[in-house]
Order: sequence, then C-alpha cells, then structure tokens
Amino acid sequence: MTIATRLAEREDNRLPARLARSLRTITTRAGLPIEEFDSWFAERRRAHRFAVERLPLAKLQGWSSEPGGNLGHHSGRFFRVEGLHVTVGAREWQQPIIVQPEVGILGILAKEFDGVLHFLMQAKMEPGNPGLLQLSPTVQATHSNYTGVHRGAGVKYLDHFIGPGRGRMLTDVLQSEHGSWFLCKSNRNMIAETTDDLPPDDDFRWLTLGQIGMLLQRDHVVNMDARSVLACAPTTRPEAGALHSDTDLLSWFTMERARHDVRVRRVPLADLRDWVLTDEDIRHRDNRYFRVTGVSVEAGNREVTSWMQPLFEPVGLGLCAFLVHRFGGVPHVLVHARAEGGFLDTVELGPTVQCTPENYAHLPEHERPPFLDLVSQVGTDRIRYAAEHSEEGGRFLNATSRFLLVEASEAEAADEPPPGFTWVTPGQLSSLSRHGHYLNVQARTLLAVAGLCQGRL
Amino acid sequence: MTIATRLAEREDNRLPARLARSLRTITTRAGLPIEEFDSWFAERRRAHRFAVERLPLAKLQGWSSEPGGNLGHHSGRFFRVEGLHVTVGAREWQQPIIVQPEVGILGILAKEFDGVLHFLMQAKMEPGNPGLLQLSPTVQATHSNYTGVHRGAGVKYLDHFIGPGRGRMLTDVLQSEHGSWFLCKSNRNMIAETTDDLPPDDDFRWLTLGQIGMLLQRDHVVNMDARSVLACAPTTRPEAGALHSDTDLLSWFTMERARHDVRVRRVPLADLRDWVLTDEDIRHRDNRYFRVTGVSVEAGNREVTSWMQPLFEPVGLGLCAFLVHRFGGVPHVLVHARAEGGFLDTVELGPTVQCTPENYAHLPEHERPPFLDLVSQVGTDRIRYAAEHSEEGGRFLNATSRFLLVEASEAEAADEPPPGFTWVTPGQLSSLSRHGHYLNVQARTLLAVAGLCQGRL
Repeated sequence: MTIATRLAEREDNRLPARLARSLRTITTRAGLPIEEFDSWFAERRRAHRFAVERLPLAKLQGWSSEPGGNLGHHSGRFFRVEGLHVTVGAREWQQPIIVQPEVGILGILAKEFDGVLHFLMQAKMEPGNPGLLQLSPTVQATHSNYTGVHRGAGVKYLDHFIGPGRGRMLTDVLQSEHGSWFLCKSNRNMIAETTDDLPPDDDFRWLTLGQIGMLLQRDHVVNMDARSVLACAPTTRPEAGALHSDTDLLSWFTMERARHDVRVRRVPLADLRDWVLTDEDIRHRDNRYFRVTGVSVEAGNREVTSWMQPLFEPVGLGLCAFLVHRFGGVPHVLVHARAEGGFLDTVELGPTVQCTPENYAHLPEHERPPFLDLVSQVGTDRIRYAAEHSEEGGRFLNATSRFLLVEASEAEAADEPPPGFTWVTPGQLSSLSRHGHYLNVQARTLLAVAGLCQGRL
Repeated sequence: MTIATRLAEREDNRLPARLARSLRTITTRAGLPIEEFDSWFAERRRAHRFAVERLPLAKLQGWSSEPGGNLGHHSGRFFRVEGLHVTVGAREWQQPIIVQPEVGILGILAKEFDGVLHFLMQAKMEPGNPGLLQLSPTVQATHSNYTGVHRGAGVKYLDHFIGPGRGRMLTDVLQSEHGSWFLCKSNRNMIAETTDDLPPDDDFRWLTLGQIGMLLQRDHVVNMDARSVLACAPTTRPEAGALHSDTDLLSWFTMERARHDVRVRRVPLADLRDWVLTDEDIRHRDNRYFRVTGVSVEAGNREVTSWMQPLFEPVGLGLCAFLVHRFGGVPHVLVHARAEGGFLDTVELGPTVQCTPENYAHLPEHERPPFLDLVSQVGTDRIRYAAEHSEEGGRFLNATSRFLLVEASEAEAADEPPPGFTWVTPGQLSSLSRHGHYLNVQARTLLAVAGLCQGRL
C-alpha cells in the first residue's frame, strides 16, 4: 500500500554534516560577503528612523497601574508586570516579574545555496538593545504579533514556520526565557528549511554558520533570540565520550530537580517588600538587581511605527561564564543547576557563573556565588572567549552581560565540583537542547558560542 | 593524566540487548519460577493482615477540613485536597485536586543472574488496589516516607537508589502523575542495577522482563508504579523508520503545547461549583467523574501498621486504548496530545482514547471523545491486548481502567488523524520517556505493555 512508501528515517543523519559544512564556509557567493556586513548593517541603521526616549512609567500611554500596583496594557494583551514571592528551600525573596503567558516564535529560515546551508538573518531594531540594531532571527514574533493584536503589518516569512506551507523543520522546541525576569515564559525556537525562491528584502541577508560564528565574536551584534535558536541546532563536533554517560547526566539532573523545593506565589506589585514604586519607575530600595522603567519608541521598519512600553533595566553588567576543560581530550563545560523563580520546573542548567557581580559586592567572599571570584580575576591567557551580548531588547533595556569561556586549570578540574555543578560535553548539551527546560537562556548563548566559534574549547 | 581514563560512552549500547534477553527469558533458576508466582502471591496475602474499611471523611483521624473546606493532615505533610479552576481555551471547569508538591521515588532494582537481568519486584498492599496486593517496584516511597515523617521503619532497598552507595542507573526520570487528579505531581522513575548480594526477603522476588510481561497480561497484578517505571526502560524493538521523523514529531508536540492555552487557579474546595461537600464525602452533583472518600487501613507489612486517609474514587470503569497500525511494516500507535488541569505544562501525550465512558453517556455522539465509539464497539478480532489495571492504590480507590491495544483498519489508518492526534512508533515513545512530561501515566502503562507483552503490535 502507498502508506508504506512514506516512512521516514527517525533521525536526519545528514544534518550534522550539512551544518558542519556551513560552519566551515565563510566565503559565499549567494549570501552576504562577510566583509560587506558592516556596510549593510550601517545602511540599515541609516534607512530606518530609530528613536527611543526614556519615559516615566506614569507617562506610558496605553499602560496603567491597576489596584495593587500591577502594570498592564489597557488591551489586556502583550505583558504585565506583577509581583512574585519566591521560596527556594530556606531562602526567600520578592521581586517584580514579567507575566506573559503566551508562546512566541523565534524562527530562522535556512536554505541551501551552492550546497551550503545559509540562514536568513534580519537587521532588527529593539528599543532595549545597546546600539538598537542587532542581527536577529528571520521571524521574531510574540503571539500578539502573529495574531494581529498590534494591528501592524503581517510578520514577514511567518508562513515558512506555521501553517500548511511551512518548511521542513530542522529544530522546533519550546525553550525558557529568563527565569529571573519572566514567569514561566517560553518561546518556540525553530529552524525551518525552505527550497522556495524568496524575493530579496533589504532588512534580511543569508549568512552561513561560519559567518554568524565570526559575528558572535563581536560585542552586541547577534541578538539573544538568534543565539538561543542557533543553540538548538546540532552544531557541536563529534566527541569520543564524556565524563558522565547521558543516563548518568539525566539522573544527576533529575536528582537536582527533586532536591530543590521551589515555590512561588504571585503577589501585587504594591505589596512587595524592598521594592519602591513611583511614577518614575519601580526599583529595589538598595538599587540592586534591576528597575522597571519606560520608553517611547519610534521606528520605521516595525509592524507598528510608534509605541510606548515598560522595560526591565538591570543595574549592572552581568557575567555569564562557563569553566571549560578537556578531559581525556574531550572538551567539557561546568554547568550549574540553577533555581530561578520564574522557571516552569525548579532548576535549569545555567553557566558555571551567572550573576551581576555588583549585587554581591557587599557580601563576604564565602557568600558570593561559587567560581565568581575565579572567573572575575582569571588571567587573559585562560580566557578562550569573551564578548558582550545583551538580552532580548523588546523587554530588557541595556541588559548586557560579559559572556566568557574560561579554561579551568588541571587542579581546578580535578576537584569534585560543588553540589549543583557537573561537567558535561557540548554534545551532551546539544542533545538536551532538543527538549525544553534543560538549558536556560544564558547557557544557550554559551552553547551557541561553543558550537559556532571554532576552536574555543 | 588519570582523569582521561574515566571517560564513559555517552550511550550504554549494550542495554537494549540485555533488556531484550531478559524479555525472552521466562524460565529462570535465580528468580521466581513463573508457575510459582501465584502461590508466592497467595502466601504474601495470607502472611499479612490487610484490612481496609471505608470511613466518612469527617471520621478520618489526623485529617481535617480547614476554613474553605480544603482537606489536610494535621502535620501539614502527606497531601492535601483543594479545589482547582481550569480553563483550556474556551472550556472551563472546576474540580477537587490532590496537592502534593514533593517528588517521590519509584525504583526498581535490577541485577544480572546467569547473564540475564532480573528485576526485584515487591508484593505490596495499597488500600485502594482492587485485591489490595499488587506487584510493585522495589521502592515506592513518598518524600515523607523516605525522610521519616511516617515515623515508620526505613524503606527497604532505598540506599540502592539515593546516596553514595546507590547502584548504576539504567533510567532516572521525573514523570508526571495523573493530570486530572494531581496538581503538578511528578515522581522519579528509576531503575538501578546492582551487583551486591542481597539478603532474601519474603515480600520481594526477582523476575525477568519476560515474566513481568506475562503478568501484565493479567488483570490487577502489576501496579501502576511498576508499569510507569518499566515504560521508561528501552524495551521496544528496533524499527526501520517511522511515519514522522523524530524532529517532525517533536515539532508537532511543540505546536500542540503552543496552541493550547491552559490556565489553572487554586480555589477553596468549599467554593467549587457543582461539587457537594458533606461529612461523608466530596462528590459531583451529578455523581460524575470521581468522589473523595475515606478509608481506615490496618496492615502488617507497612512502615506504619495503621492509618486513615482520603482516597479519590472514580465513578466508573475507565477506558485507555491505543489504536495501533503497521505502516510500512512498522508498528505505530495513535497518540493524543491531552490537556489535563494538573499537568505542569499544557499537554502530554496520552492514549488515543482515555476517559470514563459513563461520563459521556449523556452526550450526543459528536460530543463524545474521538474514537471512543470505535474502540468501545470494535470486534474482538481487532483487540490485540486487553486487561484491567488500576491506578496508584495509595491515592485512588478502585480506579480501574480497561487498557486496550486496538488494531485500526486500513481505512481508519489512511485517514488524516484529527487535530491533536498523530501516529508514532513505540520506539519514539520510548525515546521520549527518557525525558519528563512527554507521556502521561496512562500512555506509559500502554507503552510498558507494548514493550513487555510480545507480539501485540
């Protein structure tokens, strides 16, 4: 019968080699020559009127505080800022949190030119981005975007990701957003391959993975959404083994989930201890962590040309670092099972160090996060990768962290890691990234770096 | 350096063949000869004093209704019964729900005898089990159990699963419990292999997978926890391919998660519409779904010898069925992405049909669940497996369902499945069962059947 002919291989065993070929390719005729990237980007910056102005929260048109202080849009859509009470074992704290219970789409379109996979990247402005313009996925759409709540133009290329005409999926997985700033938010991270001829568009260019890897070495070029999606593609190199088998790694992760007792309770913003609400902003009484502020935006290449919105603005420069080490010749990174109040389920794997060091400056060393002092003070000869990247500019203002790969010495690597830490290979992280809620968004940035920036591990 | 010698293979490629060998083995010298199973089980039944008596909720010592009607234990531990308001898109309902935010351990100990893996199964009484005594995992412990809240005896064999002396993990994954009865409850499903010599214990016997498969064909022998754990072992046979690649399957699942908008809100029991609270029990005003009732238990082989507790008692016989069909010679089952109010994340994959038919008897055909009439009325020649099993007898009283594997005709299989349904192979389900929250507990029972009962697909 005809159905018999439709059987597929369970795994696309050609994909890793195709991605590896794209990774090796820097010179391309079909895509954007890398030496022309800066002029294209500068041109896109000139072509659009991008203006972002800070505004007090009380002046944000369309947004208002409800009884209890929670901040929402009059349409009931987009997102809300509420309060959260978090208990993790014996620790507890309160904080503002973004509530946006809907699934957005972060999609990168792929196509083969001259036998090499290229990826359609977008020059896209977001109000919170340092420099405003960053290299973004083909599609970056909230549920409100693609169902038309913005009443803006349709999202370009969206039909390659959803609906009957969509492309062949190379990856499609729900991944968490920031557990410290979002309550249980996740987005679809998708890569779809097309064979369609697509009309050229000034804001979009085809790039190889090798080219994107080069851009990842620069500060503030590749945006968070692009980094997150690229982390979900199997770009890591074959490995001869690992310190821990996959089953032992999953068992360790299960134990970490089981031993953490994380409970959260939504509370009105106005009831938060330690946080001060004014017409201007919402801030911690010691000016730690972040503040909630407002912006007015005018943009020429957006679905809507002007809007106002709140943004979360961290108080200092973040630090996200993997300690890395070769065991038996195989690169490993030291992951940390982190509890964050907004995670769907207790812990996800984060970098070895993930924090804003300023928030800990007032504490004695033994109360600072493990390895913070090590990665802060390490010599440059042990830094395998360093660049500044920012978090999603549609919700976060200048949320910049320094992302590092730091080599662990033989002595440091020989130590038994503290509880909550374990050594894993990039290939193991890549396998986990096919499924949601294993890797947090910061770990995904570093996994993308490990996969796309050659020779760093 | 010495660390180099410690690298492991990422995958234990010998395990599937070892499990397959255990599956082929019925005759064993080391374990319990299968023809002696009934006499051993009868002897265990005689050896213990098992007495379960129904009691009105108001008479349960140690349990009381708080303001608002929520039911809890005076120690604050074990579990609570609260109310839940569930919204799934345009549908909404209210119901009582069990709240037990802690992770229990369901563990089966494995050991090789004469080159064949055997599994240490326990004859264990639970008050809600039909027949009281069922074949259970080696360890079945709530967090309260193994941290000593029961003030009972230590849990036997527990140290093979946690702590420094634990065995080699063959599987260890957090899986959901019933989303219709539990709020976000999950348990660790573990199989640990040991090489230790273990002292004999009258309540425990070593069985091969082939023997357990034979027992799975009988009604009410293998308990839910054992079925759930066994589903997480890679026991399915190699497959030549699948209708949908793993990536397409994951993409479909991601889409199902993204398109379902499930919101829940805890409400006091006393505020539930449609539910009636009395000293006797808590029941739906039309006597549908389930009731919450009480039991008094006296048992001779438990950590504690007598206790009282509430149990959920469904009103009718459940039906859980997979439609099965061979595509291109490869067996497939039709899964359903089900929204249940207590799931951690929107949907999980369930059987083709999962319901209590009585609850739908008053509705016209087009409002009954898809495929319910088909699997209820199908001829016995198309039934590949049928047995009655019950859900966890520590929380549910006589929660019996008929579990079926029903062959789909060529015509039925050729139809495009309705939204929310897709054909997958047992091997694909087995891969997903390494991770939590893909397969619901009913689907796991049927996956265990597919893996352990030979020749049914």
